[in-house]
Amino acid sequence: MLKSIAVLTSGGDSPGMNAAARAVVRTALYEGVKVWGIRGGYHGLLEEDMFEMKSRDVSDIIQRGGTFLGTARCKRWKTPEGRMMGYKHLTDRGIEGLCVIGGDGSLRGASLLSKETGIPIVGLPGTIDNDVWGSDYTIGCDTAANTIIDAINKLRDTASAHRRVIVLEVMGRNCGWLALVSGISGGAEYILVPEEEYNLDEICDNMTEAYKKGKRYILVVVAEGAGSGQEIGQYIAEKTQLDTRVSVLGHIQRGGSPSVIDRVRASQLGEQAALALISGLSDIVFGYSKGRVVSIDLHDAVNNKKILDPDYLHLAKVLF
Amino acid sequence: MLKSIAVLTSGGDSPGMNAAARAVVRTALYEGVKVWGIRGGYHGLLEEDMFEMKSRDVSDIIQRGGTFLGTARCKRWKTPEGRMMGYKHLTDRGIEGLCVIGGDGSLRGASLLSKETGIPIVGLPGTIDNDVWGSDYTIGCDTAANTIIDAINKLRDTASAHRRVIVLEVMGRNCGWLALVSGISGGAEYILVPEEEYNLDEICDNMTEAYKKGKRYILVVVAEGAGSGQEIGQYIAEKTQLDTRVSVLGHIQRGGSPSVIDRVRASQLGEQAALALISGLSDIVFGYSKGRVVSIDLHDAVNNKKILDPDYLHLAKVLF
Amino acid sequence: MLKSIAVLTSGGDSPGMNAAARAVVRTALYEGVKVWGIRGGYHGLLEEDMFEMKSRDVSDIIQRGGTFLGTARCKRWKTPEGRMMGYKHLTDRGIEGLCVIGGDGSLRGASLLSKETGIPIVGLPGTIDNDVWGSDYTIGCDTAANTIIDAINKLRDTASAHRRVIVLEVMGRNCGWLALVSGISGGAEYILVPEEEYNLDEICDNMTEAYKKGKRYILVVVAEGAGSGQEIGQYIAEKTQLDTRVSVLGHIQRGGSPSVIDRVRASQLGEQAALALISGLSDIVFGYSKGRVVSIDLHDAVNNKKILDPDYLHLAKVLF
Amino acid sequence: MLKSIAVLTSGGDSPGMNAAARAVVRTALYEGVKVWGIRGGYHGLLEEDMFEMKSRDVSDIIQRGGTFLGTARCKRWKTPEGRMMGYKHLTDRGIEGLCVIGGDGSLRGASLLSKETGIPIVGLPGTIDNDVWGSDYTIGCDTAANTIIDAINKLRDTASAHRRVIVLEVMGRNCGWLALVSGISGGAEYILVPEEEYNLDEICDNMTEAYKKGKRYILVVVAEGAGSGQEIGQYIAEKTQLDTRVSVLGHIQRGGSPSVIDRVRASQLGEQAALALISGLSDIVFGYSKGRVVSIDLHDAVNNKKILDPDYLHLAKVLF
Repeated sequence: MLKSIAVLTSGGDSPGMNAAARAVVRTALYEGVKVWGIRGGYHGLLEEDMFEMKSRDVSDIIQRGGTFLGTARCKRWKTPEGRMMGYKHLTDRGIEGLCVIGGDGSLRGASLLSKETGIPIVGLPGTIDNDVWGSDYTIGCDTAANTIIDAINKLRDTASAHRRVIVLEVMGRNCGWLALVSGISGGAEYILVPEEEYNLDEICDNMTEAYKKGKRYILVVVAEGAGSGQEIGQYIAEKTQLDTRVSVLGHIQRGGSPSVIDRVRASQLGEQAALALISGLSDIVFGYSKGRVVSIDLHDAVNNKKILDPDYLHLAKVLF
Repeated sequence: MLKSIAVLTSGGDSPGMNAAARAVVRTALYEGVKVWGIRGGYHGLLEEDMFEMKSRDVSDIIQRGGTFLGTARCKRWKTPEGRMMGYKHLTDRGIEGLCVIGGDGSLRGASLLSKETGIPIVGLPGTIDNDVWGSDYTIGCDTAANTIIDAINKLRDTASAHRRVIVLEVMGRNCGWLALVSGISGGAEYILVPEEEYNLDEICDNMTEAYKKGKRYILVVVAEGAGSGQEIGQYIAEKTQLDTRVSVLGHIQRGGSPSVIDRVRASQLGEQAALALISGLSDIVFGYSKGRVVSIDLHDAVNNKKILDPDYLHLAKVLF
Repeated sequence: MLKSIAVLTSGGDSPGMNAAARAVVRTALYEGVKVWGIRGGYHGLLEEDMFEMKSRDVSDIIQRGGTFLGTARCKRWKTPEGRMMGYKHLTDRGIEGLCVIGGDGSLRGASLLSKETGIPIVGLPGTIDNDVWGSDYTIGCDTAANTIIDAINKLRDTASAHRRVIVLEVMGRNCGWLALVSGISGGAEYILVPEEEYNLDEICDNMTEAYKKGKRYILVVVAEGAGSGQEIGQYIAEKTQLDTRVSVLGHIQRGGSPSVIDRVRASQLGEQAALALISGLSDIVFGYSKGRVVSIDLHDAVNNKKILDPDYLHLAKVLF
Repeated sequence: MLKSIAVLTSGGDSPGMNAAARAVVRTALYEGVKVWGIRGGYHGLLEEDMFEMKSRDVSDIIQRGGTFLGTARCKRWKTPEGRMMGYKHLTDRGIEGLCVIGGDGSLRGASLLSKETGIPIVGLPGTIDNDVWGSDYTIGCDTAANTIIDAINKLRDTASAHRRVIVLEVMGRNCGWLALVSGISGGAEYILVPEEEYNLDEICDNMTEAYKKGKRYILVVVAEGAGSGQEIGQYIAEKTQLDTRVSVLGHIQRGGSPSVIDRVRASQLGEQAALALISGLSDIVFGYSKGRVVSIDLHDAVNNKKILDPDYLHLAKVLF
């Protein structure tokens, strides 16, 4: 059983990272294990920006967006020398295992550290994109989807007043989950995701038809990986001559106080990550699948591509 | 295959009922089946307050709280004569199956109708309490939990300014799910649920201790089934002499625009309910378990008592 | 005293337009005067898309964003022939006065109608920009400002996690009110408005300095009239080499359920507009100044440029 | 000109107190004057819980509810000996003036200190009740009113689904401002305030009438000073036999991130308070009237009773 572990957050921040880090810390302390917080991700590890944590250090943070530990880009971490130095900074303090909360790239970096140094590593999927293989869920995706539907509610007001086409670009470079789920929830007429072909000309024809029949407004949700909202909006405007507006939500999707789901699941994942790490397990990522916490091989998680739930794709078609 | 079905909402309303009804309607129309909406629950069925629905009748409602079909109490439905009249009003219009969206009592009433008349019935669990056996989820529970943590955020501001004890009573007569989940999410120090014994004297002693050590405020979440918030607050105030305030959220928990989870799952459940009903199935309730839609025997659903997830109970202990 | 009046909304929609229209309708009915609603602004007037309104037609709309009457662009209104046709459509129905809710351009169109036909016209300033001369307030500006600070709260989470510069572009082509007020409220480090010169190089130097001293993040709010957020962000990124992100809020600012201020003031303005119109007054706009409803000469309102409150500009400097 | 001042918050907390304290601190520093923060109100002053503040001590607080300085009850302050000790703790540190942010009782306590010791005192009205004479506005009232209309939106969903009467009790022991403004904004059918007589039997008769005519739901907003929501609800239920529900919002009204208005005005008031205090003025309260910051005699502010705006009372009648 390990005596001392550390936790860091890395990559783009997501709502619920604080809840996850808090659960790691409190679980470790509950088990009588020392726990260190590393500030600013791998960069902070290289800069030795770290401190031993007490229970109160994670008070009053479960409701906060962002990550109180901070995160940063780190080029040096991409080199074996960098990672070796990180390893040294951990062992210098008697730290025997590391919990990494972050997205794809961050987990990949963690897997290299484990391979090269043998130090136990457990990962948690912290990203709003919900694109980690083996898990139905990533920390922050529920809050981000709710942020998007709040925006859709506001856009609908103005779209309906003007009989407009609204194109809303949301995050998701490789994965259309956010677009699909928020599009279904927001009652979008069209949802464009990177996983599916679409024919913009056909869509334009349908729009024209719908307006003739008295439709008051049309909402198109586009995952950034499926095309630029700006370009798609311009194409629609030219082709249909309908009054079209584009909104690009951007980094607002990353912020905000986490939802209940993101707080509870992040807490559960954080607890399991700490327990696993303390017991000496390594090279696993904790995710959520079939309604419960599951452990996924770290190598599999970073090397496989998640597929969009076909039930959702079908649902989107039936409902509109 | 049925040619014509009807849908009603019954009992206490919950956010997402509109999304579910909309999915029932759109799925039926997609399948080429007629679909009727009944206003005001069983009462409306007896009053023949019903109309055939078109796709546009469910436009612009997925984001609305409450139920556009309305709901009402109905004493006559509790008699065989009442139910027989309801059956007649359905068959008069050629309606061959009924989808009922509601809580425990409403599903029980539906099961009697099916038993007595043989008309196919499919139920959907619409209640914020998340207390339907066989399902991890009921329509509206996620929105209600998020409403509660919004309230907790506000109460925390004022509690922290005054170094107060705050007692928050939430819904849940037989089931502590809402209290437990919102308590974990809101970082509550104590969570009192009907499923677990608690010792208020011991809690008071711990509070006094914590305040001596500098704790800024204490939050207690109580499910209504575990005791009256007012009485518990008074007891704490007298025993600890700490400045204590009580808040009873009440019906606010039932309202609000549904969350993403409640919209998406209600839509999925509605789709499956419609498909099952159309195909002639009966006496089942659609729920959500192990990460997917499941069908539950209607008789089992209304006759078994759901158990609170022990993992959540454990989590609450570890994290605080 | 007039016996029959009409109301329309025109131009960009804003939250509170519904509250204003509702107050016009209910006040007219309270005074025993007929009141017509015109759908789709001046365009609807030319298309004769109008109906006599009852009290219940404005039930359940005070809390809604957008405008239930709709609005549209109308080229024909810009011609004397168009306006003369509009006049005819009013007099055909015995309508003796018109209340126009909209921004600058809409009020200008109304003033021409009055000049050419002599029909009494009363205007209400409906625009989120708060740029109507003679009034401290326009309908919707408070809700829009609150929407912006919600966005700032979310951006701050992620900015703080990454030590980033965030550039947020908000509405305001000629007027920096929204940027100034939301910047002050959101604790922005820099607020760029069309009414004031700024030196971007100097700002960049200050930013670099602040980061050296440990600043965690910097927020810049830009009114669209003061420059493109995208271009300003790029300039800052290149010059300072700081990690910079740009967010363009767009039409989200126009939507949302109106705030208390926007509901109450829109109601007050609507009441006064109806009373004035009924009593035969014309060519005035009702605004809010020195803490109360005031009437402004319509000609003055559309021909003068509002000046940004110098107290706010000073406050922004002192507080940061 | 004073060289060193202090600031404290006292009484019930209200959203915007942080913005006000921040403005006091930053203005003082901008003017080159030392500024102390006192924790826990008058109690903290007696306990010498105070510290000199730097600009960064008020970073990242403008968006927070509650008060970071804390507040507490203090019996000793009610005695001349207590106040004399407080005076000594100020002069010991060279503090020459005090800014007190709080409600009626807190300002009264401040006025006694000034009278007895001659130390300059400037007050700011920090209370959600909007009940300070001479000012149209108190810090926090706008946020509280918006919190109430959010609750009304949720209650309306469920009320409409069930055809219910909803009675909502809001804060306001002596002053009906919150009830009146939120009632107007929320479209309440009845608004009961301490300043106006009402006849509950007549109201019940009207309700029965309205239901017969098809009204879907009725909302009653009650200021706590006008009666107990619980008792009024029970009376209505018995008399009308309508399905009636009561909601008591309680301390939730005190919390939440402050609105734009509360942030901006609190900042303006804080700036003016600091400037006045530094220049040696005393025994004044800064408020907001006729659209701008005004100074009010402290004695007048605490000894006169504010009257409810008759225009609002009239508006409530016309609109419903």
